[in-house]
Amino acid sequence: MDERYRVNLINTSSGVRNAVLIGTANAQGESNLAIFNSITHIGANPPLIGLVFRPLSVDRHTYDNIRETGHYTINQVNKGIYIKAHHTSAKYPQHVSEFGAAQLNEQYVDGHKAPFVMESFLKMGLEYVEEYPIQANGTILLIGKVKHLILPTESLDSQGHILHERISSVGVSGLDGYYKNTFIDILPYARPKED
Amino acid sequence: MDERYRVNLINTSSGVRNAVLIGTANAQGESNLAIFNSITHIGANPPLIGLVFRPLSVDRHTYDNIRETGHYTINQVNKGIYIKAHHTSAKYPQHVSEFGAAQLNEQYVDGHKAPFVMESFLKMGLEYVEEYPIQANGTILLIGKVKHLILPTESLDSQGHILHERISSVGVSGLDGYYKNTFIDILPYARPKED
Repeated sequence: MDERYRVNLINTSSGVRNAVLIGTANAQGESNLAIFNSITHIGANPPLIGLVFRPLSVDRHTYDNIRETGHYTINQVNKGIYIKAHHTSAKYPQHVSEFGAAQLNEQYVDGHKAPFVMESFLKMGLEYVEEYPIQANGTILLIGKVKHLILPTESLDSQGHILHERISSVGVSGLDGYYKNTFIDILPYARPKED
Repeated sequence: MDERYRVNLINTSSGVRNAVLIGTANAQGESNLAIFNSITHIGANPPLIGLVFRPLSVDRHTYDNIRETGHYTINQVNKGIYIKAHHTSAKYPQHVSEFGAAQLNEQYVDGHKAPFVMESFLKMGLEYVEEYPIQANGTILLIGKVKHLILPTESLDSQGHILHERISSVGVSGLDGYYKNTFIDILPYARPKED
């Protein structure tokens, strides 16, 4: 099997994964922005989110900034910015901010050292908690705690669900296939059938 | 904030996550099926996928079976089976198989000890590799290697991308909000803009 074909096949086999932009800054305040599709819900109480990094030999900016300041942001990609979000994956030199390169605007919240993406409708400010180096292939699972959650109240239903179609949230399959989320249903809590 | 409202808000803040059914069997061949939304791509070569388990105090069947046989399956949920897939989250006693309870059919592949879901269009057979207990909240990241990949050739494009709209793949936000994936675009590899 052709190598590129095989990589696409494996990368898309784990399905459409949520697309987010990770915003960081170094201690000098130089910002960085990078698209990721590897966030995972770890727990609701305390609110914890995991993020898988490729081996650090590849790209250290986002990881280094998180370790330097302890802060980062997770910004939901939406249909209006997915092309700009994808562009943050281009390899810019260290001192070029992908915010400027992708024409996305920085937004700051008091007390949080990492920049949010103004154009995102669902933004979280996180604080580093811990990390696990994955023996099997040198990737890293980094876990953070949600300290800030910023979203329009119109995106919420009466039970606290964020309605992702209202904020046109986008996911990505592999590195390049973008999909929007089309709402089907909210199902009731499942209980055993009585036979 | 109301506790249930807060949990929904946090659970849906990490976006729409891919919905899959994990198929397992114990050493006696009794099958188990459970819906998960916590799989993560870990690497393409070797092909590794991560799966986050809630603390083992909650439900051990899927985890115990994986540790007992070393095998499990990941079956993509699609629009035709998402209601059945959701039903596997009902708390059945240990010796009741959720395959039967949810009216989904088992399918076996030679040499693989865990059952696949016949009605899924994208199925993977995995072998246990390693696991990491997460200090922060008692969850577990379990990593497996893809040994079998079963899908219709019609779901693939010429570059090896699985086209998730063709197999009507479904994601879930929080524990109960189901979404289908509507294709937008495959974007080219991003290169820095010349200024």
